[in-house]
Amino acid sequence: MSKIRVSIVGGAGYTGGELLRLLLFHPGVAITQITSETYTGRFVSKTHPNLRKITDLKFSAIDDLQPCDVLFLCLPHGRTMQKIDFFRKTAPRLIDLSADFRLDSIEDYRVWYRIEHPAAHLLKEFAYGIPELHRQEISKTDYVSCAGCNATAAILALYPLYYHNVVDHNSTVIEIKAGTSQGGATGNPATHHPERSGAIRTYKPFGHRHSAEINQELSLHSPVKVHLTTTSIDMVRGIHCVAHTFLKNNLNEKDIWKIYRQTYQDEPFIRIINERDGIHRLPDPKLIAGSNFCDIGFSRDPDTDRLIVFSAIDNLMKGAAGQAVQTFNIMHNMEETTALTFPGLHPV
Amino acid sequence: MSKIRVSIVGGAGYTGGELLRLLLFHPGVAITQITSETYTGRFVSKTHPNLRKITDLKFSAIDDLQPCDVLFLCLPHGRTMQKIDFFRKTAPRLIDLSADFRLDSIEDYRVWYRIEHPAAHLLKEFAYGIPELHRQEISKTDYVSCAGCNATAAILALYPLYYHNVVDHNSTVIEIKAGTSQGGATGNPATHHPERSGAIRTYKPFGHRHSAEINQELSLHSPVKVHLTTTSIDMVRGIHCVAHTFLKNNLNEKDIWKIYRQTYQDEPFIRIINERDGIHRLPDPKLIAGSNFCDIGFSRDPDTDRLIVFSAIDNLMKGAAGQAVQTFNIMHNMEETTALTFPGLHPV
Amino acid sequence: MSKIRVSIVGGAGYTGGELLRLLLFHPGVAITQITSETYTGRFVSKTHPNLRKITDLKFSAIDDLQPCDVLFLCLPHGRTMQKIDFFRKTAPRLIDLSADFRLDSIEDYRVWYRIEHPAAHLLKEFAYGIPELHRQEISKTDYVSCAGCNATAAILALYPLYYHNVVDHNSTVIEIKAGTSQGGATGNPATHHPERSGAIRTYKPFGHRHSAEINQELSLHSPVKVHLTTTSIDMVRGIHCVAHTFLKNNLNEKDIWKIYRQTYQDEPFIRIINERDGIHRLPDPKLIAGSNFCDIGFSRDPDTDRLIVFSAIDNLMKGAAGQAVQTFNIMHNMEETTALTFPGLHPV
Amino acid sequence: MSKIRVSIVGGAGYTGGELLRLLLFHPGVAITQITSETYTGRFVSKTHPNLRKITDLKFSAIDDLQPCDVLFLCLPHGRTMQKIDFFRKTAPRLIDLSADFRLDSIEDYRVWYRIEHPAAHLLKEFAYGIPELHRQEISKTDYVSCAGCNATAAILALYPLYYHNVVDHNSTVIEIKAGTSQGGATGNPATHHPERSGAIRTYKPFGHRHSAEINQELSLHSPVKVHLTTTSIDMVRGIHCVAHTFLKNNLNEKDIWKIYRQTYQDEPFIRIINERDGIHRLPDPKLIAGSNFCDIGFSRDPDTDRLIVFSAIDNLMKGAAGQAVQTFNIMHNMEETTALTFPGLHPV
Repeated sequence: MSKIRVSIVGGAGYTGGELLRLLLFHPGVAITQITSETYTGRFVSKTHPNLRKITDLKFSAIDDLQPCDVLFLCLPHGRTMQKIDFFRKTAPRLIDLSADFRLDSIEDYRVWYRIEHPAAHLLKEFAYGIPELHRQEISKTDYVSCAGCNATAAILALYPLYYHNVVDHNSTVIEIKAGTSQGGATGNPATHHPERSGAIRTYKPFGHRHSAEINQELSLHSPVKVHLTTTSIDMVRGIHCVAHTFLKNNLNEKDIWKIYRQTYQDEPFIRIINERDGIHRLPDPKLIAGSNFCDIGFSRDPDTDRLIVFSAIDNLMKGAAGQAVQTFNIMHNMEETTALTFPGLHPV
Repeated sequence: MSKIRVSIVGGAGYTGGELLRLLLFHPGVAITQITSETYTGRFVSKTHPNLRKITDLKFSAIDDLQPCDVLFLCLPHGRTMQKIDFFRKTAPRLIDLSADFRLDSIEDYRVWYRIEHPAAHLLKEFAYGIPELHRQEISKTDYVSCAGCNATAAILALYPLYYHNVVDHNSTVIEIKAGTSQGGATGNPATHHPERSGAIRTYKPFGHRHSAEINQELSLHSPVKVHLTTTSIDMVRGIHCVAHTFLKNNLNEKDIWKIYRQTYQDEPFIRIINERDGIHRLPDPKLIAGSNFCDIGFSRDPDTDRLIVFSAIDNLMKGAAGQAVQTFNIMHNMEETTALTFPGLHPV
Repeated sequence: MSKIRVSIVGGAGYTGGELLRLLLFHPGVAITQITSETYTGRFVSKTHPNLRKITDLKFSAIDDLQPCDVLFLCLPHGRTMQKIDFFRKTAPRLIDLSADFRLDSIEDYRVWYRIEHPAAHLLKEFAYGIPELHRQEISKTDYVSCAGCNATAAILALYPLYYHNVVDHNSTVIEIKAGTSQGGATGNPATHHPERSGAIRTYKPFGHRHSAEINQELSLHSPVKVHLTTTSIDMVRGIHCVAHTFLKNNLNEKDIWKIYRQTYQDEPFIRIINERDGIHRLPDPKLIAGSNFCDIGFSRDPDTDRLIVFSAIDNLMKGAAGQAVQTFNIMHNMEETTALTFPGLHPV
Repeated sequence: MSKIRVSIVGGAGYTGGELLRLLLFHPGVAITQITSETYTGRFVSKTHPNLRKITDLKFSAIDDLQPCDVLFLCLPHGRTMQKIDFFRKTAPRLIDLSADFRLDSIEDYRVWYRIEHPAAHLLKEFAYGIPELHRQEISKTDYVSCAGCNATAAILALYPLYYHNVVDHNSTVIEIKAGTSQGGATGNPATHHPERSGAIRTYKPFGHRHSAEINQELSLHSPVKVHLTTTSIDMVRGIHCVAHTFLKNNLNEKDIWKIYRQTYQDEPFIRIINERDGIHRLPDPKLIAGSNFCDIGFSRDPDTDRLIVFSAIDNLMKGAAGQAVQTFNIMHNMEETTALTFPGLHPV
């Protein structure tokens, strides 16, 4: 079978680098180009040093993009929507890793991103890239918009409960612990190591834009509004999500198990982690760095109606590049786990 | 003025070591003895290496305790209540850092600690050692029971809101990020560095015993039940507390400021941290390691009724030894900040 | 081609787990058994949680080992030599990851390990498992003894210089920074997280047993004695080696380049890292966690005769399990990089 | 006694902040001004958040400096020498924490700093600020130049051996592990947290400017040239120094003890750390963060002539601000430990 020709746009960032790492080992892919305006002409392995001796690729400019089969778009938010026509002419299939086509509603872009979306007519053409919710749609579409990393962790944790309509819709409190790679490859005074090392910094007590995606995807029975707070800790990769939900009926742990198992039992990248003993009882992002897993666990407070749900992902993998490759595989009818089998390291 | 003779019981643990560090520099104190059954006869600086060249003290056995003015009790939970008569005979004043006399109610000990308290008649004689709530009582008592570290962080964050009765009593969700020193000086497979480094481990999704103290101290107008979840991250010292509360009335940030200022404006160890810009906008335990501060901040979600409150303490200081010395100073009518002026380091 | 049947002996440790991770994805291998006396009958993914959902294997007892094609031996030092006859009967090929057959000389075992080797007649039958030095021998042998992790880092850094006989033989000072996974999966008071986090601990100022291997492999022209000091820092995986050598002749950087290029130019897992600018100029173990690379760099002090050589490896990969799989591939005439292509993550 | 009026010039950096922290609690000091050109008019506690609620000082401009008794100069290297006349007019006593007056020789400034020193006539008027070597001189001078942080660690480790002339002068290899605070408060791409966290970066394989100071101070019997390599690890504060020396005569550990004890026995801030057992056998910077201690230990390799010496300091304390305050105390005939009694935390 001839290989699918793909290019990566905006390849100097962390997401672009991770995508490149995955695609270089994808048996069905030939990488055509990878772009960076800042580093045009420079070896990509200078920017992504883990790829030294693995690729001789150099960065191209966007303006020099050649036609190809699939474009992975890793530009900063707001840029892809500006150039969407150009990208559509360059490749028949687009997988966008920015926020530009994640929300269905023009109004949501006004509220959460404070912009008037310039390509609103295309919003409905993009599938939302979480396969566990939209596999069918992804398999038939040419355009995918990958989900926000925090949104992915929260949605995968909560979807079964909202789908089965067993928790109060609007009282869910979501606490996310984030790593610093989420902020991107460009530093600022707040990311200077002496300031950032060991720090615990709640960067979005409320109003995180990923809330819009979470609300959108969980509004299956009625409009949902979650309470999201995101805090950055001394970690580079990884998202740890704790969602406090309140059950409408008195379900026990077994009932909850059934709901999760029913929803996710055939999912290659979801693991339900809920051990009675041992060291690793609940999801921990440390164990999945570099993998595409989303680990999910839960605890039922017997004294109240609270059900606490945990999830852990690698923000650059299941929360970005891994998700993108997974949707790519689905779109091209390939084995869904292709190029995504790295299981993570222990210990690390 | 002659110095007050104090002894530390259970001095080989982290709390005992921290107490020793503080008391060695306390101008009004002469340390008589410090006990450890395991290390009897050994130099304390072998166990607490930061005190090398600072003290020549050796550990004594409890059975060799001499009469003194004040006993600081740092035994594991359940031990002090067994020997309380002996301690009362040894010194007229007791400051207990265990959980043994924190709760007012025998029933609470049954529910949360699953014990029948053997000295229940003394429960009422111990003041609960958070000066910001009980300064008057502490100044007049001979017996103080210091608060749990997580309880201290949560109570100080929430007390003004519950006192002013402005939040829904039973929907508060408290998320605590804890360090590994909280688990004590004795290791186990879960604290082995390769397993623990970089890990995020929710060790008490619900049912943390400190919940009992939080409920007790916040039940000012009606019985309170908070939703507490505690997660250990890769940190040694420090507690980061995020409390999600839900306002009963539509108070704005200014109203909240007034409430906190009114409650805490004269407190030497409470700082309200809420900066509009810069790197350090909200409380961060990194900045107060070694200090007795409790930093408090808050954010008002304008789109919902949620008020998010943050607090940060050093679990071994404001959460244990620092709190104990602060109550000691109050009990002895000394300047409350004596031996507690170290402000923390930056950067660190 | 039928798959090669392999078993792992001593599979509950970190090296055994890493080996299992690699072999599960090796296309030419079928894993027959993995042993642990402590955890016999338990799922291996309980011990190696990164392998949850990836394998259903359970631990077997050594006594239940079935005949197979290759045994990977990951027992603690001193155990394999005791049972070597049993292992030889179980499989025609042995790859030992302990120190039991690394040294050629009985006398070295007396000096460095203080034992009388019980199977000294077999010492010569084991190839020393660093392919860059012994590929030919490995390709023809049935028995391989993998090198010590620190030894691997030091030998690969220094071999070209000693082979070309350009440095003073006995004045080389080797400083190794080690991670805590090197100490194994069993904790002790020194590995308790609050004590170990952030610590810098020189655990072997001199006399590290890996010195014997380094001396052995570098004694190409005359007996060599290196000065090795090993210090553990707050890192789980990884070895950072700095070797201070003193040039016999006035070679410049270009000359050194030639020597390294000539020695390693065809090596799939050696990268020479020596960049003039940018962030990542010299080898850094952070970039190769999980990979089988050994990155090597050097700096020539123009004011003295000192040449500083740097190397970085993952101690569990190139320093143990990765090296073992690489030798396995060579022994079986397979592509040498099979199952070893994971490049490491960036950032992480 | 009336307080000594001091001002801090260049107070927005990490060294300036640390100095401020110390001086705010110094009973003999009244802080007059603290300058920053960037933050003129802003509260210092915005920049040094550990000092919130402790000081209401605001930054002044250098041009607004008022006459005072002592100026602490914390400007970037090269700036103080330019304005030295102005500073001399502002205060009769100067304590400079930059490198501008550390070296005695104009030629050394040419070689190591590549500058023609504009105030070379003053070089001899500055005492080199390590009290353990120059206490007498410091007690009589008005001008002190504090030593480089790495130089301080290396000199204190090696001085007794060079003074007693027992080691080969020019074969000493010094390996320093440094924290990121050493690089100052201003970030760059290399200090961006995702790049810097967990990294091991040898930033000066050779040619570190502190070498000049080390050579200068150790050249007691003949000119000395040490081999210094500095590597930054994932640590904010702290220096860990390992010096590999080669003994000229066959001294044993007891002999070495005598040499160190004789030199340092009355020193308030030097501790000899050399324990046979336990967790904390050799110097570790983790234990002295925030303190002014320099911990020193050593190991004698019995099989060679190597003596390995270890030292640990807090680079911002004994390596900068603490050293400055110690010299201040000596200059003013105060108790040398004033404001410097904080012992460090354990665990942390």
